Amino acid sequence: MNFRHNSWDLRFKEPFGALPSGSQATIRVYTTHAVNVKLRTYYNSIEHFYDMVPSKFPDMMEYTLTLPDQPGVLWYDFCYEQNGRSYCYGTQNDTLGGEGQIYEAFPPSYQITLYDKVREMPAWYTDGIMYQIFPDRFNKGEKKTFEPQYKKQSLIHGNWSDSPHYFRDSQGNIEYWDFFGGTLQGIIEKLDYLKELNISILYLNPIFESSSNHKYDTANYLHIAPEFGNTELFEQLCAEAKKRGIRVILDGVFSHTGDDSIYFNKYGNYPGLGAYQSKDSPFYSWYRFNDYPNEYECWWGVKSMPNVEELTPEYKDFIFENENSVIRRWLKAGASGWRLDVADELPDEFIEGIKTAMLQEKEDAVLIGEVWEDASRKVAYGVLRRYFYGHELDAVMNYPFRDALINFMMGYKGSRETARLMMSLYENYPRGQFKGNMNLIGSHDRMRILTILGEAPTLSKESDKEHYRLTQEQYNLAKNRLKVLSLIQLTFPGVPCIYYGDEAGLQGYEDPFNRGTYPWGHEDTEILEWYKKITALRAKHKAFQRGSWYPLPCKDDVFAYVRDLKDESYLCLFNRNTVKSRCFSHGAVKDREGIDLLTNKQENLNQIILEPLSAKIYKVVGGRIILHGNEYKEKGIIPSKYLTP
Amino acid sequence: MNFRHNSWDLRFKEPFGALPSGSQATIRVYTTHAVNVKLRTYYNSIEHFYDMVPSKFPDMMEYTLTLPDQPGVLWYDFCYEQNGRSYCYGTQNDTLGGEGQIYEAFPPSYQITLYDKVREMPAWYTDGIMYQIFPDRFNKGEKKTFEPQYKKQSLIHGNWSDSPHYFRDSQGNIEYWDFFGGTLQGIIEKLDYLKELNISILYLNPIFESSSNHKYDTANYLHIAPEFGNTELFEQLCAEAKKRGIRVILDGVFSHTGDDSIYFNKYGNYPGLGAYQSKDSPFYSWYRFNDYPNEYECWWGVKSMPNVEELTPEYKDFIFENENSVIRRWLKAGASGWRLDVADELPDEFIEGIKTAMLQEKEDAVLIGEVWEDASRKVAYGVLRRYFYGHELDAVMNYPFRDALINFMMGYKGSRETARLMMSLYENYPRGQFKGNMNLIGSHDRMRILTILGEAPTLSKESDKEHYRLTQEQYNLAKNRLKVLSLIQLTFPGVPCIYYGDEAGLQGYEDPFNRGTYPWGHEDTEILEWYKKITALRAKHKAFQRGSWYPLPCKDDVFAYVRDLKDESYLCLFNRNTVKSRCFSHGAVKDREGIDLLTNKQENLNQIILEPLSAKIYKVVGGRIILHGNEYKEKGIIPSKYLTP
Repeated sequence: MNFRHNSWDLRFKEPFGALPSGSQATIRVYTTHAVNVKLRTYYNSIEHFYDMVPSKFPDMMEYTLTLPDQPGVLWYDFCYEQNGRSYCYGTQNDTLGGEGQIYEAFPPSYQITLYDKVREMPAWYTDGIMYQIFPDRFNKGEKKTFEPQYKKQSLIHGNWSDSPHYFRDSQGNIEYWDFFGGTLQGIIEKLDYLKELNISILYLNPIFESSSNHKYDTANYLHIAPEFGNTELFEQLCAEAKKRGIRVILDGVFSHTGDDSIYFNKYGNYPGLGAYQSKDSPFYSWYRFNDYPNEYECWWGVKSMPNVEELTPEYKDFIFENENSVIRRWLKAGASGWRLDVADELPDEFIEGIKTAMLQEKEDAVLIGEVWEDASRKVAYGVLRRYFYGHELDAVMNYPFRDALINFMMGYKGSRETARLMMSLYENYPRGQFKGNMNLIGSHDRMRILTILGEAPTLSKESDKEHYRLTQEQYNLAKNRLKVLSLIQLTFPGVPCIYYGDEAGLQGYEDPFNRGTYPWGHEDTEILEWYKKITALRAKHKAFQRGSWYPLPCKDDVFAYVRDLKDESYLCLFNRNTVKSRCFSHGAVKDREGIDLLTNKQENLNQIILEPLSAKIYKVVGGRIILHGNEYKEKGIIPSKYLTP
Repeated sequence: MNFRHNSWDLRFKEPFGALPSGSQATIRVYTTHAVNVKLRTYYNSIEHFYDMVPSKFPDMMEYTLTLPDQPGVLWYDFCYEQNGRSYCYGTQNDTLGGEGQIYEAFPPSYQITLYDKVREMPAWYTDGIMYQIFPDRFNKGEKKTFEPQYKKQSLIHGNWSDSPHYFRDSQGNIEYWDFFGGTLQGIIEKLDYLKELNISILYLNPIFESSSNHKYDTANYLHIAPEFGNTELFEQLCAEAKKRGIRVILDGVFSHTGDDSIYFNKYGNYPGLGAYQSKDSPFYSWYRFNDYPNEYECWWGVKSMPNVEELTPEYKDFIFENENSVIRRWLKAGASGWRLDVADELPDEFIEGIKTAMLQEKEDAVLIGEVWEDASRKVAYGVLRRYFYGHELDAVMNYPFRDALINFMMGYKGSRETARLMMSLYENYPRGQFKGNMNLIGSHDRMRILTILGEAPTLSKESDKEHYRLTQEQYNLAKNRLKVLSLIQLTFPGVPCIYYGDEAGLQGYEDPFNRGTYPWGHEDTEILEWYKKITALRAKHKAFQRGSWYPLPCKDDVFAYVRDLKDESYLCLFNRNTVKSRCFSHGAVKDREGIDLLTNKQENLNQIILEPLSAKIYKVVGGRIILHGNEYKEKGIIPSKYLTP
């Protein structure tokens, strides 16, 4: 190709990745015959063309761009002429960046994320290992420190090991919510267990009063759900967690409330006047009625979740501004951060307000958003979101990571494409957000990972899903895949988040079957011991928490990367093939030895054999390895040849 | 009519009613022109004809019959000739006895129940007031004296006031059993409440281990259901009840077990070998398999309730014979009797075995049977049952009483027909069984009485039934009817049984809606105070417990009777008319005065005005009233003119 650019290669773009607003970046292209080469940028709806000039590198042209001094996303691509014809050059159609391609019309552009560098991400967070708990399903607790109170139409399963179940009426509406009796007291009693798992961050699904078992339909932001505990118990949980070096992150559901709430009060179950009951309600301004009172905007058409108008002054005051606002109050009570439910549906200004209030209250608190795609360029409702400008989210739930790794493990995508996807996030996310990525492989919104990895069939009937269990053969396959997958998760940049019970062998299709109870006393001890081992690995070796990350070229079945920190290099290899051993070799580790951290054996790295469904994590003996010469090493990226498919 | 007999009139049959086997009875007919008059009897498939002879009474013929010396039912009627034609005479087509009619072919016969007089019914029972509790729904209890354990697929309602609900799968089978958390501890804590209600007998629906909430599918006859408590708690309940003069009667379900039981063990949930699992099971002989193991006899085709072969020696030994048999064990633990579920499906010999064992263990214990019809002549599966021969049931659940009184209150049947129905039971039941009749107006097997009396509409959909509540108007009507009806119940011969919550205003259609929770703190205090008042009335005045009973002739809307004991007479009047006052007068109380026990006012009894839906219970001043001359008074019956419709 006689025209080239590769955004992941320092020869073509320097510096790599997202950049502070107002800083400079040099963009280069390789070309031998092109004339009238222009760099085209697009920022805030304004297009610019810059004439590129010859570089000090042979056959290259360049332009040093002074980036806009406001955060945002700057898009760029190229146009040029050759043999009297016009061409463009942009990223490939997958828009992932890296090596691009020549187009005859407008190409998809490269992205540079611009951000304000406000603060370093708190180390307690980026160095941590997270654990997500769906509070009703984790642990009941032995000590009777409070009397759980349930709302009408609540059912408590008599048996901890029963399956979650939706109890619907004949119209398919949920008639009863089922509970298992998990409590904050129960979590307190298992903090030592979490400590053994090397957990340092606890993310709790919503814990505030509401009708449902999931509590995404808040009834009262200032009350702990009386099924789960009370304020004192929450404070005690935070205090006991802190003693063990564990922080607590809460789930904030602010785009809507429940209809059965102190605010909307559709059923009159709460004291005072709700918005549904009277226009004189103090909460009337929060909601958007089309035809009062029965026609109102609600979340995804779910009538039980009326949407709020987040920017109403009264609402902002209540949620984050005043001294005892929701955000502040629970930070004061001991929380160390918030996860924002459906961040896409919250106005930027609202998220920024939360962030500001949060940092005023607790300077090392962390704000995580529920965003399902690349959050650096997420367009929601036609508007590019400003999650990562520096004043908003510290991190997002990394569903792209989950998808990519499942696709890799299942053989749907090769290691090169997987690496490309990860590299794209690495490039687009400000480094803080990349390190802060909540790297999950399970959550309350997805099938249990074992069920996926065991190739459970597609079922349509809820009752079939409820009762389906993997065969022993499927289960063994799933378990071995999970070991490899979880080891990627625990050695990858970003904060690994373990969805409660994934470490104990829980299976289950989608909601509600992914919300089964933690199987105390019936754990798959093989998986559990594995998780203890690999979380210990991450906790012990700082390179996994803080090191740079380089993927290495490989056969499709092997995902390989290096984590470097200071003088240390760790070579991480993962073979997804279920039947064939795979062989790995790379010049950078030729004649080097490494300690296999899973076996503690020292081995020669010239030719590494990977058994089917296995992984190797080597700490390279004799210090850091040099992959691409100093200029690249220092910058933490690798030449394009390794990454282009 | 020139040929007459009236089995309720001492001039025609003497003595009245059921008679000891081997005793004598004189049967008379009135006739002026009949010749060749024969008394025909039928007993144990053998027919006899006796020539009737002239009586000392004018125009009457008689025969004094020596009754068979074995218990059973002797049937009789008459045949004669007149003007050269043959006629028969028997009871009316309703077969209730009393005044009969002439037939030209075989008539329905009169009945004489013959019994062995084994013992006097224990006074603690016949003098008592019973209270039926469905244990899961009465009271949870404050004290945590044990940790309730629930089986798989059990749901506990989070809210005591929610409605019971069947949780079915798509085939309509029950997928989950719903519980509310009532316990034996909860009952213990409410014994003082029962004492205030003047309760002296507690009948508990089944309390042994089983999968369901109703526990009619026993899993282990020797274990208290771990949802409800344990043996120690049961013993404590009996002991605490005894301190308050309250006896406890248990529900024995012996015609079938649960399939999910230690005995059948279809799902392998219990240790040891169940009959379903192996023919080597020690319980294999209990069951009747048609095609082992999946085809077996079960209760009304319900596969979860496999029938047992009650006469299997191993089963009899287990249930009642051996020293630690079920019957004996729980009597030793403190029970004072048993109620036998579906007595119709238990062989006579089995019931007799239970009775014998029971009396060996506790001589004043009581055995009650679930029989829905006149138990003195119940034919089940083609065989006349011997419930009342003297060695079997002490009493039955008096559903005919309930049906008759509801029909009266609702205006479906008049007071004369109601009196006839009651008189028929009075005649057919041995006196002990009549006094022991478990006179219920509500049970776990029938709609709540308020729902019936409030004229709730017929609904077919379960969800409609679940949510239906009487309007205020309907409720008031139902409440006023209930007051009258319950006062009949509390002043009638037999042991009144209050179904928990009927005294507190519970509504509900059939199962499961008739099994709602007792509304602690939300009782209808008007109804509750009424029940306290009328139970106190019965408890105070022995005539209601032990007195003889005479219905009085009345307009259809007024049910009237007298209860006599020694020198006391009580006149009881009930007006069912919802809009009209009714006037009552009777020669026997002419110029007498009575104390209205509901108001404590003394009134003249010449002309009594009954307001709509009201009742009067008078203690007649100045001693017993004479209704029909001494010969009748002493025998406790009245002439036929009062009773024939």
